[in-house]
Order: sequence, then C-alpha cells, then structure tokens
Amino acid sequence: MKALVLEEKMKLSLRDFPIEREEAMGPRDVRIKLHTVGICGSDVHYYTHGGAGIFQVKAPMILGHEASGIVVETGAEVTTLKAGDRVCMEPGIPDPNSRATRLGMYNVDPAVRFWATPPIHGVLRPTVVHPENFTFKLPDNVSFAEAAMVEPLAVGVHAATKAQVKPGDIALVIGAGPIGLVTALAAVAAGCARVFVSDVDETKLELAARLGPITPVNVAKQDLTAEILAATDGWGVEIVFECSGSPKAAAAVFDPLCPAGRVVFIGVQMHDIAYDVGKAMVREARVEHVFRYAHVFPRCVSMLSSGAIDVKPLITRKFEFADSVRAFEIAASAPKGEVKMQIELPQ
Amino acid sequence: MKALVLEEKMKLSLRDFPIEREEAMGPRDVRIKLHTVGICGSDVHYYTHGGAGIFQVKAPMILGHEASGIVVETGAEVTTLKAGDRVCMEPGIPDPNSRATRLGMYNVDPAVRFWATPPIHGVLRPTVVHPENFTFKLPDNVSFAEAAMVEPLAVGVHAATKAQVKPGDIALVIGAGPIGLVTALAAVAAGCARVFVSDVDETKLELAARLGPITPVNVAKQDLTAEILAATDGWGVEIVFECSGSPKAAAAVFDPLCPAGRVVFIGVQMHDIAYDVGKAMVREARVEHVFRYAHVFPRCVSMLSSGAIDVKPLITRKFEFADSVRAFEIAASAPKGEVKMQIELPQ
Amino acid sequence: MKALVLEEKMKLSLRDFPIEREEAMGPRDVRIKLHTVGICGSDVHYYTHGGAGIFQVKAPMILGHEASGIVVETGAEVTTLKAGDRVCMEPGIPDPNSRATRLGMYNVDPAVRFWATPPIHGVLRPTVVHPENFTFKLPDNVSFAEAAMVEPLAVGVHAATKAQVKPGDIALVIGAGPIGLVTALAAVAAGCARVFVSDVDETKLELAARLGPITPVNVAKQDLTAEILAATDGWGVEIVFECSGSPKAAAAVFDPLCPAGRVVFIGVQMHDIAYDVGKAMVREARVEHVFRYAHVFPRCVSMLSSGAIDVKPLITRKFEFADSVRAFEIAASAPKGEVKMQIELPQ
Amino acid sequence: MKALVLEEKMKLSLRDFPIEREEAMGPRDVRIKLHTVGICGSDVHYYTHGGAGIFQVKAPMILGHEASGIVVETGAEVTTLKAGDRVCMEPGIPDPNSRATRLGMYNVDPAVRFWATPPIHGVLRPTVVHPENFTFKLPDNVSFAEAAMVEPLAVGVHAATKAQVKPGDIALVIGAGPIGLVTALAAVAAGCARVFVSDVDETKLELAARLGPITPVNVAKQDLTAEILAATDGWGVEIVFECSGSPKAAAAVFDPLCPAGRVVFIGVQMHDIAYDVGKAMVREARVEHVFRYAHVFPRCVSMLSSGAIDVKPLITRKFEFADSVRAFEIAASAPKGEVKMQIELPQ
Repeated sequence: MKALVLEEKMKLSLRDFPIEREEAMGPRDVRIKLHTVGICGSDVHYYTHGGAGIFQVKAPMILGHEASGIVVETGAEVTTLKAGDRVCMEPGIPDPNSRATRLGMYNVDPAVRFWATPPIHGVLRPTVVHPENFTFKLPDNVSFAEAAMVEPLAVGVHAATKAQVKPGDIALVIGAGPIGLVTALAAVAAGCARVFVSDVDETKLELAARLGPITPVNVAKQDLTAEILAATDGWGVEIVFECSGSPKAAAAVFDPLCPAGRVVFIGVQMHDIAYDVGKAMVREARVEHVFRYAHVFPRCVSMLSSGAIDVKPLITRKFEFADSVRAFEIAASAPKGEVKMQIELPQ
Repeated sequence: MKALVLEEKMKLSLRDFPIEREEAMGPRDVRIKLHTVGICGSDVHYYTHGGAGIFQVKAPMILGHEASGIVVETGAEVTTLKAGDRVCMEPGIPDPNSRATRLGMYNVDPAVRFWATPPIHGVLRPTVVHPENFTFKLPDNVSFAEAAMVEPLAVGVHAATKAQVKPGDIALVIGAGPIGLVTALAAVAAGCARVFVSDVDETKLELAARLGPITPVNVAKQDLTAEILAATDGWGVEIVFECSGSPKAAAAVFDPLCPAGRVVFIGVQMHDIAYDVGKAMVREARVEHVFRYAHVFPRCVSMLSSGAIDVKPLITRKFEFADSVRAFEIAASAPKGEVKMQIELPQ
Repeated sequence: MKALVLEEKMKLSLRDFPIEREEAMGPRDVRIKLHTVGICGSDVHYYTHGGAGIFQVKAPMILGHEASGIVVETGAEVTTLKAGDRVCMEPGIPDPNSRATRLGMYNVDPAVRFWATPPIHGVLRPTVVHPENFTFKLPDNVSFAEAAMVEPLAVGVHAATKAQVKPGDIALVIGAGPIGLVTALAAVAAGCARVFVSDVDETKLELAARLGPITPVNVAKQDLTAEILAATDGWGVEIVFECSGSPKAAAAVFDPLCPAGRVVFIGVQMHDIAYDVGKAMVREARVEHVFRYAHVFPRCVSMLSSGAIDVKPLITRKFEFADSVRAFEIAASAPKGEVKMQIELPQ
Repeated sequence: MKALVLEEKMKLSLRDFPIEREEAMGPRDVRIKLHTVGICGSDVHYYTHGGAGIFQVKAPMILGHEASGIVVETGAEVTTLKAGDRVCMEPGIPDPNSRATRLGMYNVDPAVRFWATPPIHGVLRPTVVHPENFTFKLPDNVSFAEAAMVEPLAVGVHAATKAQVKPGDIALVIGAGPIGLVTALAAVAAGCARVFVSDVDETKLELAARLGPITPVNVAKQDLTAEILAATDGWGVEIVFECSGSPKAAAAVFDPLCPAGRVVFIGVQMHDIAYDVGKAMVREARVEHVFRYAHVFPRCVSMLSSGAIDVKPLITRKFEFADSVRAFEIAASAPKGEVKMQIELPQ
C-alpha cells in the first residue's frame, strides 16, 4: 500500500513506505483505516520549504494530519471503540506523565508527538495506529469530510474558548484563510452577535460573508479601525482574533479593541512584532496566545452533529489519493477561491 | 389617555390614570411613547394574587414591564437618543451611587425601582419618562414586537453568561415556559452544542424542539437523568438551568450534572428546597443564582438584529390595548400553546 | 513490622499485617518508609462508627492517610525522586485514563483509590509503595510533622483557590476544627484582609485568633450575621467557607454574604440541607463545592517552606507509634484544646 | 495658604495659589484638609520634563496625588463621612455616566480627571474638595503616612488581582522601584508562595529581600531565567509582573514563564517593544495590562489595618511642607536607598 511521502523540499512521491510494519498496537491503541485527509497550510509549507523553524525534514516523511477514518482493530483494553466505528483523530500525542498533561493542558507539553511534524509521519497512507484517548467516534450524521475538518475547526473553537466569548460580544477576525474562517464560525457559535472578518482577498471575504452574521472588511480598500468604531458607537470590538500572521496586522490589534477587550494570537509570526504596551494599558486589554487545542475534538464533533457549526461551505475541492501529488501542487499555487482541499483514500 | 390599572387583586381597569403629570423630565431622561408591551408571568401573578412575597399591591398600579416604544422628547443632556428613535427599555432603575451599582452589578442593588413592582407603576399606558442610560435604540430590522421580548430574553442571556458556556457544552433547561425557552435560545447562542429541555407539557416541548439543536424530554413519561446519561456516555450535562420553580426539580439538579458542571437557578422558589451537598461535592459543582440581568439589553438587541437569536417563534398572540383586560383574563387561564402574549398600544 | 489495624468498629490492634508482601513496585513507583502520620477525623470516624456512608469497613483495614516519610526505593522510570528524599504523599490515586483525570480534575474521578477508605489500606505501617506522581519532595526546612499537615492543609488551599479570593476580600469560616483552621490559614494566605471564624468552642476560637488577622465569633453568645454586617458597613463578607458540617449553619450561609459573594461547602453534610434559593438570588451568590483537592500538594509544600503559611500552631500533640491505639482512644474522646494529633513511626 | 506649584519645567514654587475659591462643594462632596502627600515618580517627571506624552504642563499646576487627610466639611447628601474623619483619597474621578464607569471599570474611562495630571491640579495644598465616593475612611490603626501609600499600593494590588494569583503561585517582579515593591507585597499577600524580584540596584534588592518570602536577583550579575528555572525544576514562574519600564526586560518576559503562565505589564513603556508571539504561544501565555486601579482603595485600607500588608518599610524619608521644593530636588536626584519620600502638611 502506498503513502504520500515528502522525500525532500519540493519532491513528493506516492509510493510504498514501510511504516506499517513498525507500528505495534498497544493495549489502549486502535488501528484506523484512513478515509479523508485535509491539506493544511503547514503540509504545504513543508512541501515548499522543506521545514518550518526548528522542524526540518531530514528524512522522507509522510504528510497529512487532518484526518478521519474507520477503526479496524482495537487493543485489549480499549473500551469506547470497536472495529467499524467511524472516527476522527487528534494528531498530537502528549506524554501522559508530563506536568502539563496532568494539569489538563497537554497541548503545551513540549514532548507532544504531532503527525507530519518531523520526524513524526503523517497519515496520507492506508492505516495508522493511534491511542483510543485521541480517537473520537463520529455520529452517523457527520461525514468523513466534515470529520477531517475537525482538526482545523478545533483551532478556532479553542481560540473562542480562550477568548471567553460572552453572548452578544462583537469580534474581529483578522485573516480569511482556513483558520480565520473556522475561527469566525467558532466565534459566532460561541455567542458573538456579529463578527467582522478582514482580509485583502475579495473572494475569501465573499465566502466569509455567507457563513453567518459576518461583516467582511477589505483592508485594501477600507480603514478597518474606522469601520469598526463607526459600527460600534466608538466603543470597539470585545475580541480581536489575529489569524493572518501578518506583523503589520499584529501590531495594530489594539486599535479597534474596546476597554477590557481581549486579543487572541492564533496566526504564526515569523519574527518579533512591534507591540504598543501603552495602547494595551489604556484599554486594560487581555492578550491570549493559543497553541493548537486541548480537549476540544469531542466538542467539535458534537457541534457538527447538532448543526451548531457547519463547516461544509469551507470544503471547496476533493481529490482522489492517486492524485494527491497534483493536489499538493495546486495547493502550493495558492489557488483563488479554495479554502480547504481534501484527499480521499481508497476504501 | 388610558392605562391598564390593577385596582386590586383580580380587578383590572382600562381607565384614565393621572400619572403623566407627575413625571418630570430630568436632563438625562427621555420621554417614550409606548408601542408594544409583553405580558409577563409576574404581571399575571399580581393580577391573580394581588402581590408576590414582600411586594403587595396596596394602591392601584399600572401593569407591564416588557416594553418597546418611540422617543418623543429628550432631556437637555441626552446625547445618544433623539425624538423618533425606536427603542426598548430596561424596567429597573438602580441608585447610581450604591456600592453594587458602582461595582457594575446594579441588578443586586436593593434600591432598584422596577416597573410594575409595587409601588412602582408599569408601562401599559401611553408614555413614560425613563433614563437615557436604560433606553436602547433599535436597529431598523428589529421589530417592536421583538424589542418587547428583550426583557425576558435578557434573563436567559444573563443566565447563559453566568454559566460561562463554553463552545460545545451540553445543557439541560428545566421548564419550557417563556423563561425556559429564552434560556434555551440563549444557551444555544452562547455555544451549547445541544440543549435538553424538560417539561410535562407536550405542546411546549414540541415548540422547544423547533427552536434549534434542542432535545425535548417529557418528564411525565421519561426518566430525565437516565436520558441524559445515555446521551452523554454517562458523563452528564455541563450545565443545568433550573427555570421551573419546582422544588422537586430543584432538588434533583445534580443528578444529570457532569463533574465540574454548573447549575444556574433562575426559577423563583417559594420555599426552601432540599439540597444534597454531597452530590454537589463529588462533582465539585458550581451553583450560580441570577437576579434579573445587568448590561445585557444592548447585547440582546445586537443578537436579534444579527439573527444570532430569533425570538419570533415565541410570540404566539397579540392584543390591541383596548382588549388588554381580556388579554390578562386569557393569560390567567394558562392557555395551552401560548408562550408570549403581547399588547400593542394605539399609535 | 506492625501496622495499626482497624479490625472492626471500636476495635484497633497494633499488629503484624501482611500487606507489604503484596505491594509490588511498578516502574513509576517509589517505596516510602513512613515517618509521621496525622490522625484525621475520618480515621476516628471509621474507628468509632465502622464506616461512613457507602464506605463500610468489612475487613481489617490499616488507618492513616496524612503522611510524610523517606523514599527507600525507586522504580526504573522514576526521575524526580531518589532514595533518601524526604517526602509527603497525596493519599488518593486516580485512574490516569479517566475523563476527569485527563481534564486535570482527578479528584472527581469516581475510580480514585484513597488511603484508609475501605477497602484501601492506610499508612500507619512501616512502608508503602506509591506513584512518583503523587509523592512530593520536601525542602530541608519543612519538617516531617509539617509535611504530614499538607494533606488537611490542601483541603483549605483548594477551597480558597475555588473561592477565587481577591486581595482584600473578607471571609467567614464556619467551624474552628482542623479543617476550619487550615481553611482560615489558606484564606489569609490567599489574600483575605480579614477572616471571621465562628464556632461554639471558646478554646478553638482562642487558638484561631492567634493565627493571623482572624476575628473569632462565638455563635453560642453572638449573632454571627449581626457581627459581620456591623463590621462591614452592612455589606457582608465576600466569601463564606462552610466547614462545620452543621445543617443549621449550612442553611444560614447566605445571611452574612455580600452581593456577588461566594460560598464554599467543605464540611460533609449527612442529610439534605434546607436551601433558600431566594436569598442566594438577590445576592447573585456563587456556591462552590469542593471534594478533596487536585494539584495542590506542591503548592502547600512551597508555602510551608517560604513561611507563607505556618501550620505548626495546629499540631498540638504527638504520640509514638507504640501508643497509637491510645492516641485514637484520646482522639475519639474529642479532647478539649487538641487540633491535630500526630503519630511518629519508629525510624 | 500656600501650595506647591510647578510653574514650568524645573521650576517649583511654594506660594499662594487661588484654587480654593474655585472649588465649590457639591451635595455629594467633602472638603478635606490634607495631611500627608507622597512624591510619585510621575510628579518628579512633570517637574524635570514639564510633561509626559500627551500631558504637557502649559500653565502653573499644583503637584501631588498620593494623599491622606481629615474631612472638614461635608455636602448635604453625604452619608458615610463626617467632619473629623481621617481619610485617604483616590486621585482620579471618572464620568459617572460613561459606559466604562457603568460597567464597573471606571479606570479605563477616557474622561477620568486625575490629580496632578495637566490640567488638573494636585493636592500639595491646604485643602481639596472631593467626591465622597472616592474618599475612604481610615481605621484608627492606619496612620496618615500609611494612608498616603494606598495610592501606589493600589497599583500593585490591582495588578495582583488581574493576575488571578492562586495560592502557592511563584511570581517574578521585574524592577525594585516603589511600584515593583508594592507589587511584590501585593503578590505575596495575594497568595504567592515566593516572589523573585529583579533589579540592578543592590540597595533596592536588599530592601526587597526583607519584605517577606522574596528572592532578590541582581540581573547585573545573575542570569534571571536560569535562576528561575533552576529554582522551579525547569517549570518557570506562574506570573511575571513587568514593573521596570525597560524595553529589554519587557521583551524577555516569556523566557522565565511556565506553561499557562500570566504576564502583567505595569511599567510604562515609552516606545513599542519587541514581542515574541511564538514564545507566548508555546506556553499559551496570558498577558494582562493594567491602568491604575478600580475599586481597590478600600481593600488596601483593610489590608493595612489588619496587617495583611505592611508598607511602612517603604516609607524612607519625610519632609515638612515648607521643605517641599527641596524634597523634589532630592527626589529628582534619584537618591540611593530611598523608596517613598512623603511631605507632611502643617496641621
């Protein structure tokens, strides 16, 4: 059986890869046949750059970490899953004995092993062995495609949780890429009366505007702070979610923020940003920083199942596994109008 | 001009009432022409019982406190409103110098003067003078009828805020009366993936089930705790909102509650309830108690305007002002299938 | 080597007990030679009543769970402890895979195995095998006697943490027994400007008054609510810690409470209490319920070491292990003036 | 009667100043005879620089805002104070009708009028008229000198409150000036087991070390992060309070911070700082920014009265009012070993 292997920077192969034989089942593990895997910006970045920060691809590595599938085998002590269960999986596995994990914050455990982050293989391959604790059963009305969206959605839901959204808050999401859009969906689901989404890409903003009580702001044409102050009687928004990774946007997060407002940094910044302590002080701003998510997957599955959140409009294109190299080539071209591209594995 | 006056227990008159002349405008007040006034259970209770607890009707009193209208005059220092503005009004006015008010919790100021709570008159009358700070401008897309629902909705939104709903929580609302239903709406808007609503009235439960991801439970036929534990893998709900006022229901709030879950008491209890400290302890339950609301009206208006919450299905019947005595007679008969009845004043 | 065995209700033996041979070391366990063990009210209750609620002593059981000692052996994967380390131990061991444990709230995991809670043996015996994760190294300046106070102190510190004490809060602790006194110490350390402690025992109140900015109130002679309202300009206390287990005291917790105040139930109640929802509502009271503690032991050790909390005045009497039966007989007589009695094992 | 007037940059006069006649009493005001006024760094900065940011001294202005005194006259509606009461005063008066004030956060109301901030006069003068709501009665055991320390202490207590200190937290305070030291005192009082204080001034660090469980770190000689990680088993501190205003220190706040730790910015930064979002993310750091304080004065008075906090060691020198020009000259010379210098007015 084949896997999608990043051999080195800009070189992908769909080829046999001998990882399966290495994967022994522990008593609390399950073996999962992969069904759908989404393409994340980080996958594309590894493909185009061969690494990210301290994580450099030094040996062939399988890509993919936004995944759903079907349980095919269960360890002896597994109690909540059985063969045939449709599932989605959390891609990071922490050390269960670390101080952070025991405190309930396993995402900030430095020992987390995360799929498709060197040297850990991803899941664009036939099967994977995974701990029961990080594998979540799907209700019948959640499709494999939606389930493969749980991973990015979890980022947005975790951010909205950290922001402590109160019903009727007004928020700004900076950046209308996949993470910006799931954050906007999460902010609305978490109680925002209205969410402004800013970007320079009109196509993305048009999509955003169709997702709920969302007001798009094209910062190439409009003054973001002026728009927000005008719409809020000069008060500002209660929450700013920075999802763009733009240092310029990050430096301006306090301008549209109301007194006692909250800022959440989600987008990765490559360098130090310029930070205006004085503007934060006069507002008594609270700034939160999120790192992936913890304990959020089952919540996302519940919200998809109940209809509280609908991610289907974000899934804009699907590929067969046989076309996965081409899928990555397209993804790397920053195609207009695409939000989330997914790959379906043969069943 | 006429007002709806509760002369004494079980005796209502639609008659001239000389209150207008008494109401002098302060510099920060506005005069409002009433448009729509909802009938609240407390109005009906004053009508049928002549009082409630320490609040007894000792002199003729105008009823009504869920209100919307149009500004017709503004005080010299009013800056945010002008004649012609469509508005809704918060019915309780605190002492601005009380310790509670200055801390931002004006609802627990014992000096609050609240419409239609003896000896303060309500607003089933042509006009009222009210402070600008407690009068809220309506966007064009919020109707007078919806605006007159802001007062009960605020109770639910305040309760959901106190509960600190996190995205993906599952909640139980006990009681499918008007307050139970607005609480269910608020809980969903605040991030609940799913809300169970329990009652013994099938008609109300059917309405509840149409309002969103809401699961009705008829406690006359079903075991509430068993249903919830079955639906949550034995974990329980994160939040229980007690809206029934039933001592039996109040005594059972911990049974379906998950570890670290929260209970919010909203329904008024006439007597001490039996409270099982041990059940609360093994769950480390947090219990909140709400009293009306504070700072919630503008949030409700925003959510109605953006569509984040839709209260229209709860408005089941309207009366002309001339029929308001009959409206109260019907309300007092506990009519099947009615949720919120409203009275429209002549314009 | 001998252990203190509760053979049955009212019958204690200091005798050989074959538990040691059963205790196998896991790779993440340590073996600890016991040094000091405090006598807890629950130990005495098992002695005098033969059980508590669902926990009945059906076979001989070793007593004792407030303990300090010295590591004598370490499992292969232990990294933070070595033979010779002076330590104190958390007596409850949860299932590491339970949902509550993974969320960071292991104390509410129903599967917790807790020393000296049937059928789990306590530690009035020479040695015990215990997980590294629940064994905490002592700084040189924390004595074994103080370390054996960490367990009850943790209850108070956990309660003060749950109460979210803000600097300058004023609190009331109901009950001046050991748990009341450690809660008062914790409340002061957590930021209270002043703490009222109420009881009917003048001796205990005199001790309480010497522990810091603590005002004793003898409820046999004084009106508790009147005293508190007089001392707080009619506002009330921000926090009430109920440590007495008295149903009468529990029913009156809202009377001295300020608006938006918090109540923490710590004392075990044998039966349902009468609970006045209305009094809680007009204050918007928050009620917390605590169950033991989680993640608090290392914090207690730090505070004892730095001098932030001093528990030494609470240790009123010590016994040699050979006298431990007599120690329990004395403890069961509710001796005047004793707070915490401890037993030192032979070294 | 004379006042201490900043005529212009570097020019102070002790002279007659006709402000008294301008100050009319409102019904909720009191007139206070000043007793003790502390010299704040901002007073000195206005003296030496003639302004700060947007606040420039364009006309003669009386200095001083850390003050205590005696009520000499009360308005008709004053209920909590009477002539002869010893008091301390909050120097900032907000607009009672602003949105921020009504929400309970009057400190972030842009309309606040603050003593000795142009064009508002300070209180180095015989008397001042002030609102009852911002004037706080002193218990007998709090001296005028301690009461004049409440203003700076309130900054520290507000910061510790925002940090949500939990009992047993370990904190770092960067900067051992007056604000750093009151913040360290507040952090200990709020529950910290231990507080590190860093500075380059050995004299200040020696004073800090005598104030409680405080560990001084001289960053001219020691590696701050290395010291903290060594002392915390590599975990880091739960809270960093940045009180130095140093951009270099501000840029390094995340290095010694533990996962889920909190940073509080207190020190004023003149320019944008370099901010490492990535370091904040991997820890999921929360960053709070404080602006003065709100609702904290009575809490500080309570803590001084009960002994929960002792500010007396920080008062290092007193001057008579007749020597107040010289006092400012000395203060401007950054005298070694002085923390808080105070001026006593003639009584």
